[in-house]
Amino acid sequence: MQYIAQKVKECTGISTTTRDIENILSALRSTSEFWELIRLSNKPFVVVMETIKILVDEGFVELKKEGTITLTESGVNFLEEHNIKPRVEYVCPYCCGRGVRIDGFESLLSKFKDITDGRPEPVLKYDQAYVTEETAVARIALMADRGDLHGKDIIILGDDDLTSIAAALSGLPNRIMVLEVDERIVRFINDVASKHNLSIEARLHDLSKKLPDEYVGRFDTFLTDPPDTLEALKLFVRRGITSLKGEGCAGYFGVTSAEASLNKWYKFQSALLAECNVVITDIIHDFNRYVNWNYLLENVSNDLPFMQRKPSNIWYCSSMYRIETVGNPAHINGDISDSNELYIDKESIVF
Amino acid sequence: MQYIAQKVKECTGISTTTRDIENILSALRSTSEFWELIRLSNKPFVVVMETIKILVDEGFVELKKEGTITLTESGVNFLEEHNIKPRVEYVCPYCCGRGVRIDGFESLLSKFKDITDGRPEPVLKYDQAYVTEETAVARIALMADRGDLHGKDIIILGDDDLTSIAAALSGLPNRIMVLEVDERIVRFINDVASKHNLSIEARLHDLSKKLPDEYVGRFDTFLTDPPDTLEALKLFVRRGITSLKGEGCAGYFGVTSAEASLNKWYKFQSALLAECNVVITDIIHDFNRYVNWNYLLENVSNDLPFMQRKPSNIWYCSSMYRIETVGNPAHINGDISDSNELYIDKESIVF
Repeated sequence: MQYIAQKVKECTGISTTTRDIENILSALRSTSEFWELIRLSNKPFVVVMETIKILVDEGFVELKKEGTITLTESGVNFLEEHNIKPRVEYVCPYCCGRGVRIDGFESLLSKFKDITDGRPEPVLKYDQAYVTEETAVARIALMADRGDLHGKDIIILGDDDLTSIAAALSGLPNRIMVLEVDERIVRFINDVASKHNLSIEARLHDLSKKLPDEYVGRFDTFLTDPPDTLEALKLFVRRGITSLKGEGCAGYFGVTSAEASLNKWYKFQSALLAECNVVITDIIHDFNRYVNWNYLLENVSNDLPFMQRKPSNIWYCSSMYRIETVGNPAHINGDISDSNELYIDKESIVF
Repeated sequence: MQYIAQKVKECTGISTTTRDIENILSALRSTSEFWELIRLSNKPFVVVMETIKILVDEGFVELKKEGTITLTESGVNFLEEHNIKPRVEYVCPYCCGRGVRIDGFESLLSKFKDITDGRPEPVLKYDQAYVTEETAVARIALMADRGDLHGKDIIILGDDDLTSIAAALSGLPNRIMVLEVDERIVRFINDVASKHNLSIEARLHDLSKKLPDEYVGRFDTFLTDPPDTLEALKLFVRRGITSLKGEGCAGYFGVTSAEASLNKWYKFQSALLAECNVVITDIIHDFNRYVNWNYLLENVSNDLPFMQRKPSNIWYCSSMYRIETVGNPAHINGDISDSNELYIDKESIVF
């Protein structure tokens, strides 16, 4: 396995351990679908893809025309030799592993579903992919549970998830502000707000530009869902921190493992702690679950049959981070000149 | 509230924000029991205690002989003025917010309860307090879910929780090693192991002494539950990291908020990331729930009636951290000369 890990590392430039390969192999005993394999193994897309290619070369895995991936006899023997068992999940079926209940918000959920019917479809340009309605409501439950919602001033930086609408429907926040780069979403949120008399203000703003002065140091809680490049993670979260009032304020954001290796997580966490006066209070595995988006298959390799098979289930997830300021929030604000690098790095799925 | 926060900070030496006071006041609308207040507000014991004393002085709170704490009329008015609502919890009732199911381990849980009946009672000397049987089994489910149990070499540093027994009962690990300072527990574990034919080896060892050479770099997974002083947190977790084989290995440990302010969390996380080549992959709020221990009331102030009221429920919890090595584990090993400071600092509950 050392050999496979080494080869994957060479192809991808991403640090890959025998343990990573073991996780992918273990997941291969539980599913034959590529997308599900990414979720189960909890490894970056490119790492899983390159591993599969090498396993094919080694004769451990066979690719079927219909896009499935199956272990060969010699693959199964290899797993037996290395005592690698099928991946078993122990996720709580009631809360999907999120730890919060949403059954107190049933009517909110049903209203939210009604209202967001006909929402703008995700576009590649802004790396969009929105979370399930249940996820949006679970975010409300989580923020409420942690005391970050009720009577608070909330800012949402980028909101194709429409979490602002779920938050407003709860009736709990004092103020909800949305900054969003996509005109369609700004319009959708403001239309919904005016039609349903919800107190949300959405404004067109590109987060590569500095946070407007009137939002600096004004909010209790921020929520954002950055692209998974290191630059974007740092930028979006810094913008959020810049918006906070002072000590004891909170921020929420998702980070995937599908597009962010643990080495990237490490660099991101290190920067966060070293520069921003914040502490990490929660990291909730696979809290955010994303509805499959249309542009996925068009933008990945069509030479590999398993990548052209439509995901049969939700597979793209992110861990929810909660951070809290332990001193005056670092107000690091300034424009970014080249916003291209925000969306794409060597761990990205689509280019 | 700024004034109360300032005063608490002066008394305790712990950074306290208006937001902290708000959280305590909000919890006071939901419970009249001191211990429950600590859990609900998620603030250090000493901060909650000093806040209550100040609230009494201000006439916002009344202490009853039977040990309850109630808001006065002027207290309720103060809360209304500041729009502070009762604390509402949204914790998943099925998994207690842990995110993992334990219903696949029902017979394990029942065996574990049988076997651990008659276990050594917690003693003050080693800052002991063990987790519920459900917590011990949930740890097994979590480690299994993350691929850190099956076929792995596990080391447990300090095991009054007897998690080693639950792990062995699962039949999943390859090897289970326990290092423990309390002779009673070493004997109990080894007796159980020999009686029930479980593959565990427990050895008497004081973690203030360096990790014995034969355990350095030998394990896939460590678990520990350190005292909550900064020194102990760093020491125990470093010992764990020192035991790990290489990149892609994992460690688990609990950190409370009852004895560790977020400032301490911040210092701890910063040290971990800066010195140890590890990344934090999970922080699961209140995952570990501790059975109430006998020496509590004898060792806290008996001038304050609310502290002499027995906790009616589990209140002492800790967040479960999972870390993973992103490079060669830092093998920081060496004896500590003064082990007293490991157990006690200004945020400790009992002295």
